[in-house]
Amino acid sequence: MGQGMIMSTGKERELTICDTTLRDGSHAVAHQLGREDVRAYAGAAERAGVDVVEVGHGNGLGASSIQVGLAALSDVEMLTTAKAELSAARLGVLSLPGFASIERDLKPALDCGVDEVRVGSHCTEADVTRQQISTLRAMGVTVRGMLLMSHMASAKKLLEQARLMQGYGAQAVVLMDSAGAYRPVDVQEKVGTLVAHLDIEVGFHAHNNLGLAVTNSMTAIRAGATIVDVTARGFGAGAGNAPLELVAANLHVEKIPSRIALFGALDAADLASATFVKRVPTNDSVTIASGIAGVFSGFAAPVRRASERFRVDPRAVLLELGHRRVVAGQEDTIIEVAAALSERDSQ
Amino acid sequence: MGQGMIMSTGKERELTICDTTLRDGSHAVAHQLGREDVRAYAGAAERAGVDVVEVGHGNGLGASSIQVGLAALSDVEMLTTAKAELSAARLGVLSLPGFASIERDLKPALDCGVDEVRVGSHCTEADVTRQQISTLRAMGVTVRGMLLMSHMASAKKLLEQARLMQGYGAQAVVLMDSAGAYRPVDVQEKVGTLVAHLDIEVGFHAHNNLGLAVTNSMTAIRAGATIVDVTARGFGAGAGNAPLELVAANLHVEKIPSRIALFGALDAADLASATFVKRVPTNDSVTIASGIAGVFSGFAAPVRRASERFRVDPRAVLLELGHRRVVAGQEDTIIEVAAALSERDSQ
Repeated sequence: MGQGMIMSTGKERELTICDTTLRDGSHAVAHQLGREDVRAYAGAAERAGVDVVEVGHGNGLGASSIQVGLAALSDVEMLTTAKAELSAARLGVLSLPGFASIERDLKPALDCGVDEVRVGSHCTEADVTRQQISTLRAMGVTVRGMLLMSHMASAKKLLEQARLMQGYGAQAVVLMDSAGAYRPVDVQEKVGTLVAHLDIEVGFHAHNNLGLAVTNSMTAIRAGATIVDVTARGFGAGAGNAPLELVAANLHVEKIPSRIALFGALDAADLASATFVKRVPTNDSVTIASGIAGVFSGFAAPVRRASERFRVDPRAVLLELGHRRVVAGQEDTIIEVAAALSERDSQ
Repeated sequence: MGQGMIMSTGKERELTICDTTLRDGSHAVAHQLGREDVRAYAGAAERAGVDVVEVGHGNGLGASSIQVGLAALSDVEMLTTAKAELSAARLGVLSLPGFASIERDLKPALDCGVDEVRVGSHCTEADVTRQQISTLRAMGVTVRGMLLMSHMASAKKLLEQARLMQGYGAQAVVLMDSAGAYRPVDVQEKVGTLVAHLDIEVGFHAHNNLGLAVTNSMTAIRAGATIVDVTARGFGAGAGNAPLELVAANLHVEKIPSRIALFGALDAADLASATFVKRVPTNDSVTIASGIAGVFSGFAAPVRRASERFRVDPRAVLLELGHRRVVAGQEDTIIEVAAALSERDSQ
């Protein structure tokens, strides 16, 4: 693949840019990307020189449902459409055990030509990825582990969890800043710890709630991460992700070798902007409060609803949810907190 | 004013947040902010706890003209309207010698209750600020110097120019990243050099062309800057400025003392967003290329026009303009470069 090597860790590895526009970006359009969107963007990503094009429902394989959101296209439709446009770039998918199963979802996906699978869990629950990672590895598939909401765990805890994934056979571990709550100093510490102590590659997936997605991605690379996730225009829910085109610009300015073609990356982002990106992600009060609180960005919509109902400040609700360290699946707490704040305000 | 002290330099000084939404933001609406916009936003900025509210035409006092753009309101109208809303916050103006003169523009502005004046020049031409800085200081006015396009000069050169301003009587020097071309490492070096060697305060004014405005602002503070410029939602031309609400969020997260009220800052940005900010600044190919090239963002529109006329890639034009180190006033070069690229392409 590329000639570029990242030298800072002494472990000479090429930089892998994973473009998750057609997966994480799906959240921004309620999983309604159409066949032409997938086809055109996959081609643009190939020309941009990204290493991996991740495709699918926002929550990954098998996640399309009435509860989480029905996708416009099936996993197989999205994957076959993207695969036809890729040659140097690899096709990737996300698998969250609970949504995706090996027989029903992963095997059909692999039949579409998927080159690598990321298996993810909450940052303290790596054990739930054991079966999928080990089974896929036994099948000879390239597998990376993903630790979600990783701002919630210490560097030591993350290393312990990442080692579990490494032990299951994962060939990389990606720290997900699911709430956009990392500061550069946190990236340096956590990525640096994993790079120093793991034998496998380390990656970073930024969100922009505090306006730090680009600098956190570049800090991750300097700390030794060799996998960085991006989306065109930061396309994604709420405050969005690290924009492909800005990471490309920073790689160019910093003279960091990669397979990225600068103008190709700018073109891909312009194409996304002109077609399926209806709203370029920016921050508002609620996404910022979500980043400060370190609360999953999927909470934004129900927090807005509950705050209207109980006539309380949604930002105060988010900060309190942050104090309580709630995670996805604990949405009931939103109502509880909004009601409690409303009661307190009326006293 | 505030109780917060920035300790990192050993010089204990309070952090000053300068909100230039109603001045630098004017560029984004062709200087058409109305009286109600100014009134409402100045009040919101006061409640946000910003230290200075800078007001006026995008190019400062006396700049309203057919050539640069006629403002909807006169300087005096804008300043009196804003001043009526301020109590703890100070009222500031920008003066660029050439646009503004002491008798015609600065004295009437001071009569409106202006508390401080920033006098600016290109980063290698501090001598043009001598007369205004020394005259205003002799009048007892608080004066700060501003070095525009400061990415184009070395730390050593900037220190030499800043020392001139200090010698004229300026009470601070603000480095302007007019093209959004600084990386955090550049901020660290240049701000750090000025902080180490000047007796007066140092400030930083970020633009977001490379997606680094927030981290550069925070890096400036860590490097000892005690003045940071912001605008609501990054409101400004092209890629925009450092957003008030994101700097506020980062100050909160980093526990850096300031007079900023977090929810007040979020409210001010939400108000701006709901009223005069028609388009939240985001990056596109041209603003990013402008940041990479280190070219003044005001060149974007003429570059687009020339590129269409000569059927060349506007990004290639910007990169070539960057190689030639052009600055504002050299707009003729745009046509020259576009024509040359067109000729080369056709060979």
